[in-house]
Amino acid sequence: MSLIGITMGCPVGIGPECKLILCANWADGAVQPVVLGDTEVLNRTAHELNLPAPIVSWQPGDAVENGSVPVYNVTSLKAGDLHWGKPDKVTGAAMARYIEEAIRLVQEEKLSAMVTCPITKTALNLAGYTFPGHTEMLATLTETDDYLMMMAGSRLRVSLVTIHEPISRVAELVTIEKIKRCISMTADALVRDFAIASPRIAVAGLNPHGGEQGMFGCEEHDRISPAIDSYTGPAEVSGPWPPDTVFHHAVSGRFDAVIAMYHDQGLIPFKLLHFSDGVNVTLGLPIVRTSVDHGTAYDIAGKGVADFSSLRAACLLAAEIVKNRAH
Amino acid sequence: MSLIGITMGCPVGIGPECKLILCANWADGAVQPVVLGDTEVLNRTAHELNLPAPIVSWQPGDAVENGSVPVYNVTSLKAGDLHWGKPDKVTGAAMARYIEEAIRLVQEEKLSAMVTCPITKTALNLAGYTFPGHTEMLATLTETDDYLMMMAGSRLRVSLVTIHEPISRVAELVTIEKIKRCISMTADALVRDFAIASPRIAVAGLNPHGGEQGMFGCEEHDRISPAIDSYTGPAEVSGPWPPDTVFHHAVSGRFDAVIAMYHDQGLIPFKLLHFSDGVNVTLGLPIVRTSVDHGTAYDIAGKGVADFSSLRAACLLAAEIVKNRAH
Repeated sequence: MSLIGITMGCPVGIGPECKLILCANWADGAVQPVVLGDTEVLNRTAHELNLPAPIVSWQPGDAVENGSVPVYNVTSLKAGDLHWGKPDKVTGAAMARYIEEAIRLVQEEKLSAMVTCPITKTALNLAGYTFPGHTEMLATLTETDDYLMMMAGSRLRVSLVTIHEPISRVAELVTIEKIKRCISMTADALVRDFAIASPRIAVAGLNPHGGEQGMFGCEEHDRISPAIDSYTGPAEVSGPWPPDTVFHHAVSGRFDAVIAMYHDQGLIPFKLLHFSDGVNVTLGLPIVRTSVDHGTAYDIAGKGVADFSSLRAACLLAAEIVKNRAH
Repeated sequence: MSLIGITMGCPVGIGPECKLILCANWADGAVQPVVLGDTEVLNRTAHELNLPAPIVSWQPGDAVENGSVPVYNVTSLKAGDLHWGKPDKVTGAAMARYIEEAIRLVQEEKLSAMVTCPITKTALNLAGYTFPGHTEMLATLTETDDYLMMMAGSRLRVSLVTIHEPISRVAELVTIEKIKRCISMTADALVRDFAIASPRIAVAGLNPHGGEQGMFGCEEHDRISPAIDSYTGPAEVSGPWPPDTVFHHAVSGRFDAVIAMYHDQGLIPFKLLHFSDGVNVTLGLPIVRTSVDHGTAYDIAGKGVADFSSLRAACLLAAEIVKNRAH
């Protein structure tokens, strides 16, 4: 059985309740999620929300079964001191510990993969962790220099050349090297992690209509085309495609993934199709890591209304990648 | 009966065949399309593609009926000299004449509205017309300074603050004045043309996550928010919204239109939802004009495989706008 470690994320966000609902409803004999978190917080959440979640303590090597909520207890938070939607230094430190333990257990092969739940940068920083974000923390802790964000869903996969950058800086940041790296890492992942022997990758242009022969920008000619031309590998890489139609073609089945030049070029179509069940996959790490595609949702935390579709999809994809890599 | 004039567009593109199929299959007693074009070209197209299209000559004031193809003959091209997919100076001049005649007949109230079919800028220029595009030509001929492009479909409406600009210039071009104008013209159109008494308009941010409090850009704070705040009118205008989720919310029914800051921000989600049946509406003109949302498609012209969904949707929307304005 493949064990997927799920970090509990922020203890006062929607993480705890999502985990309880996920595990209690899990039915896949080959895969089992294990929560890296805090037993008391989970117990309190189950009690408050009246969730029938059979929480059991788990240690590496223990047998587990579908339907239970196996918890590897990392912290001993005083649940009574916590307030939904109010993160602080203590919850920030706890979040970080779940991530550290998950990485350790995957590296020691006690778990097959890890799935991360939302954290808050502010609380992380309050607790003394200075990483700009989740993925940067994972990269540092696994000593990874080169990693890439891919969004994966049943209808569309998108890799991002640039991520959290202002639009005013995107054009200068889209370099041949970055595009080449994004194409190459995406191709490798499609072959190894998604079991697509000859993947078809579409590279989006940067500008309207792909620049229309230089009328609206020259990055397509100067940087995107050379990056595409230099690719040698198993994938069929094409482009630069007009950004406003390439996603339609991908969704129609013509491509296995789209390389997007900037955050919203890729995330706008992705979230339109996968608002609730999108998965964020970090390519390039030595371990398998997927992540939910939403935030801590403090406004609805502790109310039992959170949607766990993205967490479920992230677990299933992590298990799928583990299986594909083993073949 | 509301008569909608359709310009034939490029005589060697997919325009002629789309019109024949549209008119032959039209069944709406209150609305009838009339083609501004070339009878011989249409006759030859019908013959070559074996289309059962009863082409009839039409003059202002003539009675028309559904199922026929009423043609206001503007040019006398030698059909034998034309070659599918090969525009030249003669076809360029013809395209321009269809537009001029359509404007005249709508201005003289012989037609209720006009729908334009794809033209080629190169051929237009060869024929001595120096307009950068279709809409600019219409604006000049109707003496309109201020016009706006809206993409309209059954699931999403998007207005664009900037259109054919390179990504590197978008941030500087998104000014308070342009955003205000886009909000105001969109609000007016939703009330007058779409009969929505209290429209809900979402204004997208420019940067990832809407700038995340200035971390990834400050245009939201400096320009988009002030433009939203200054709006006074019947619409409920909100934002700046994170670009990657606002379209999901609009499609879910929360908004009647989204104001997009740049071409692909609006066109990527729009074309994902309305690849075949999207309509381009020009707001701000003194006449009603809609347009198909595709190009001349020279690669498939004259083959009888063109999709006329967008033309059909453009005619229906033009008729709807005419009806709403009359109320």
